Amino acid sequence: MTTSDHKVSRFPVPDLADMPEDIRERILAVQEKSGFIPNVFLTLAHRPDEFRAFFAYHDALMEKESGLTKAEREMIVVATSNLNQCQYCVVAHGAILRIRAKNPLIADQVAVNYRKADITDRQKAMLDFAVKVSQSAYAVGDADLEILKSHDFSEEDAWDIAAISAFFGMSNRLANVTSMRPNDEFYTLGRG
Amino acid sequence: MTTSDHKVSRFPVPDLADMPEDIRERILAVQEKSGFIPNVFLTLAHRPDEFRAFFAYHDALMEKESGLTKAEREMIVVATSNLNQCQYCVVAHGAILRIRAKNPLIADQVAVNYRKADITDRQKAMLDFAVKVSQSAYAVGDADLEILKSHDFSEEDAWDIAAISAFFGMSNRLANVTSMRPNDEFYTLGRG
Amino acid sequence: MTTSDHKVSRFPVPDLADMPEDIRERILAVQEKSGFIPNVFLTLAHRPDEFRAFFAYHDALMEKESGLTKAEREMIVVATSNLNQCQYCVVAHGAILRIRAKNPLIADQVAVNYRKADITDRQKAMLDFAVKVSQSAYAVGDADLEILKSHDFSEEDAWDIAAISAFFGMSNRLANVTSMRPNDEFYTLGRG
Amino acid sequence: MTTSDHKVSRFPVPDLADMPEDIRERILAVQEKSGFIPNVFLTLAHRPDEFRAFFAYHDALMEKESGLTKAEREMIVVATSNLNQCQYCVVAHGAILRIRAKNPLIADQVAVNYRKADITDRQKAMLDFAVKVSQSAYAVGDADLEILKSHDFSEEDAWDIAAISAFFGMSNRLANVTSMRPNDEFYTLGRG
Amino acid sequence: MTTSDHKVSRFPVPDLADMPEDIRERILAVQEKSGFIPNVFLTLAHRPDEFRAFFAYHDALMEKESGLTKAEREMIVVATSNLNQCQYCVVAHGAILRIRAKNPLIADQVAVNYRKADITDRQKAMLDFAVKVSQSAYAVGDADLEILKSHDFSEEDAWDIAAISAFFGMSNRLANVTSMRPNDEFYTLGRG
Amino acid sequence: MTTSDHKVSRFPVPDLADMPEDIRERILAVQEKSGFIPNVFLTLAHRPDEFRAFFAYHDALMEKESGLTKAEREMIVVATSNLNQCQYCVVAHGAILRIRAKNPLIADQVAVNYRKADITDRQKAMLDFAVKVSQSAYAVGDADLEILKSHDFSEEDAWDIAAISAFFGMSNRLANVTSMRPNDEFYTLGRG
Repeated sequence: MTTSDHKVSRFPVPDLADMPEDIRERILAVQEKSGFIPNVFLTLAHRPDEFRAFFAYHDALMEKESGLTKAEREMIVVATSNLNQCQYCVVAHGAILRIRAKNPLIADQVAVNYRKADITDRQKAMLDFAVKVSQSAYAVGDADLEILKSHDFSEEDAWDIAAISAFFGMSNRLANVTSMRPNDEFYTLGRG
Repeated sequence: MTTSDHKVSRFPVPDLADMPEDIRERILAVQEKSGFIPNVFLTLAHRPDEFRAFFAYHDALMEKESGLTKAEREMIVVATSNLNQCQYCVVAHGAILRIRAKNPLIADQVAVNYRKADITDRQKAMLDFAVKVSQSAYAVGDADLEILKSHDFSEEDAWDIAAISAFFGMSNRLANVTSMRPNDEFYTLGRG
Repeated sequence: MTTSDHKVSRFPVPDLADMPEDIRERILAVQEKSGFIPNVFLTLAHRPDEFRAFFAYHDALMEKESGLTKAEREMIVVATSNLNQCQYCVVAHGAILRIRAKNPLIADQVAVNYRKADITDRQKAMLDFAVKVSQSAYAVGDADLEILKSHDFSEEDAWDIAAISAFFGMSNRLANVTSMRPNDEFYTLGRG
Repeated sequence: MTTSDHKVSRFPVPDLADMPEDIRERILAVQEKSGFIPNVFLTLAHRPDEFRAFFAYHDALMEKESGLTKAEREMIVVATSNLNQCQYCVVAHGAILRIRAKNPLIADQVAVNYRKADITDRQKAMLDFAVKVSQSAYAVGDADLEILKSHDFSEEDAWDIAAISAFFGMSNRLANVTSMRPNDEFYTLGRG
Repeated sequence: MTTSDHKVSRFPVPDLADMPEDIRERILAVQEKSGFIPNVFLTLAHRPDEFRAFFAYHDALMEKESGLTKAEREMIVVATSNLNQCQYCVVAHGAILRIRAKNPLIADQVAVNYRKADITDRQKAMLDFAVKVSQSAYAVGDADLEILKSHDFSEEDAWDIAAISAFFGMSNRLANVTSMRPNDEFYTLGRG
Repeated sequence: MTTSDHKVSRFPVPDLADMPEDIRERILAVQEKSGFIPNVFLTLAHRPDEFRAFFAYHDALMEKESGLTKAEREMIVVATSNLNQCQYCVVAHGAILRIRAKNPLIADQVAVNYRKADITDRQKAMLDFAVKVSQSAYAVGDADLEILKSHDFSEEDAWDIAAISAFFGMSNRLANVTSMRPNDEFYTLGRG
């Protein structure tokens, strides 16, 4: 598989050989598993301490046990990232969502307008909350948590939805400022 | 190729056999060419007079000779439709854009954030104008047309950009209200 | 009646003599009926195919039998066009609304704030929906259609409201980009 | 001339006979001059101290000598009030603007989109500033005042524009909350 | 107590000796009571008639008997002024709120997000209404007044809330355009 | 020093004794240094892995060597957090800003409207960029980085500004959803 020769990031991207050991190892592991190195790893490697914190946070939210399935967590990323106009996050997490959900259509549907996507009403309520956290968190209150509860989301699920929406809101801003380029590979992954 | 059994539209969709002759013929011609019937044809067939005017307008803008290439015209549709959160238009015209541009990446790039897409600066200026027409046409003035001119767009090109942005703004609203469903086929077309 | 000598459109306006026969005939018929040629006809005549599609669409929505009265359809145009800051549409359709409703006050009321206009609660619900289609169609859903139903609007009426709002949203954008000038005659028509 | 029997205000409106002497006298003077009592006087008479302060402020801005003509001051009121969707202010001050400017078209043009009105570029710059004060005063800075200066507005003129925009922003909010009804007489005044 | 030597206002500030007698007296009285002259007095003294009307209006709303306590009235000022990004009003009225409420924390809480402040649900409903008047008065209607009534606010209280929100919306715009500087003394007043 | 008995967070807050060793130690160290435990530590301790990542990220941005002074970094937090209406972040980081800048006025000034604060033009340019990242990162481009460069900010400084704005945008959302309460101690710290 070849990658286009466009710039990965507006900022300098270090060579693998020049990266701290732990970061190089994480990147090589990802490359072995995926067949390519997602550009978010190369972009953030410019700042090793931020790289470590970013992926520790990412894993704490996205890899742990949760009342939300992994596909549902990716839906949150995709829906909020498109509203933030983050090309990297929509394309990369769209691929992951297609794979996690084993559904080639869902990522584009959720990205553009989740209200019309082939998902459950409970998942739409989850995304309503995620989008409110992303766009007007100041107005979140008891009534929002009651709606989640009526869809059988626990208090811990509410935290998870909010934290994923908030974390990727940060990620969206970083990707837009760095002009982080989605790898060509993501576009077709999981399209069946 | 099979199509999922979700509803095409929130409103009634007539059988081909019950449609007026001219509409049925247009639809059959599209089906022969594309291998499937895009749902916008079925949805609007509920209103034959509106169907005829819609596609006459569409063709007048999208099929004619123009200073804009057909791929550029599709870029306008895709960029403005995502800001309007129109699932049908982003998915269907994203497919057409990939085909017209012979580029499997461009549609997702332009949809999410055209400022980061693999397109020329001239095309970005075209999309800046198209988005301004879509979101704040009341503020369009001489200065906007001067910018277009500085990128070698003629006055007639300016009309074309504005008219395509305006026409698909209408289409986006119709698709959202009717819950028009993008055909499954569109998602993978042109992904190479 | 004389018309001021300001420009009709930012774009070229053809002479009647140079227009295609069908377009000239339509324009002469309007002139005979109204006593003047509304500038939208002259502005769009610069693009004959678009002219034909535009007025075919217009007539399909505004002239046909409908659950909405002609005055109600004009209310939709006036309320949404003012939010889009479209001078031509507010002034021209304000005149038509005054005439259709035989009410010299209603157009200015509906344009500025329909919530305070001398119209029925049912008409206010119609305009709530029309404005939502105009400004945030992506969020339209079942709940909106239920509200319409509770005011005795049929499913077909909902389509009509949405289609008129969407069509004039296109028209508003064209008028703002072309700087289409409202004819002087419209300002006083129907003021009784 | 008769006035329609709709409510003047959502709040109680006192009888002339029950008003404090100074307020009644002001109202009778207005009635003698205009031929009717504008409803803003009746609505605010419910609160005599606020009435006195409101009209003292109004007169300090609108009746004094100023680098702005009286017609220009009314343009500010009309343009900002329509963006605030204030029916009373657009209709009443639209009438005053037509009279002050001796121009039957100008009020509707300025209300809907002053960028397309038959006014000078200097007046458009004045309204750009007035609208910025109305909608995002927090961002007003030296650059805005420089633009005014380049159009030969003095520092005192800048204060006048800002104060009129701010005062009528208050008035717009009061009119919307009280549902203050524009008198029927205003609609046709100055239409020639 | 010393005041920093930054400019009080972008516009000229008259000497006390040059002010009209009534204005100088009002200012000296405030100085005697507070220990310093709040800059709003100096800034507005540039325009004596506007000064008189402004403070007459201010006193009519803020000093009179009302169903709202003086602390509640200051809450309205602080919450709406921060949304309008008015430094003078948040700092000065924050001080007054701390003093009136005998609570050193409340002003910062209400300024940044009143939904999270140590105030009653009734006071939060009051601020919901005040903020709606400040930001979208055009949409205020019967339903808003019903909510206030359900919290035991009278019709006169509703007027008071709206008028305070509207008056300080004007004040916020004037302070932002004049770059009115909050006196250093305000920052620590009432912090206990 | 006593802390009010309001809830620290909407979610469960663990006892110090029940926390993982490393988290308890960090918290005790903060308490020893500050004299109290900032509530963000208690709130996030509910999720140990997220706690660790959050503070690792925080320290990577706020404690490291940088072209931005520590006071400047706090300005970014305070300005963006008020626009996000985050009570905890404005109050807590306002205190830190006052201390870092040795200036008792600066935090309230920067929070409400940094354009009017006693800071340098260079610092205002820094905050213009930080606010753009916070509110419309999708539109950040070369022109923004050129402006920073013209104020002698390096490319690395640009990353720092963006990353701090993005990180605290996440923090603002978490604080609003958890209803994280600012400790009473923050309100008066650094007020001199």
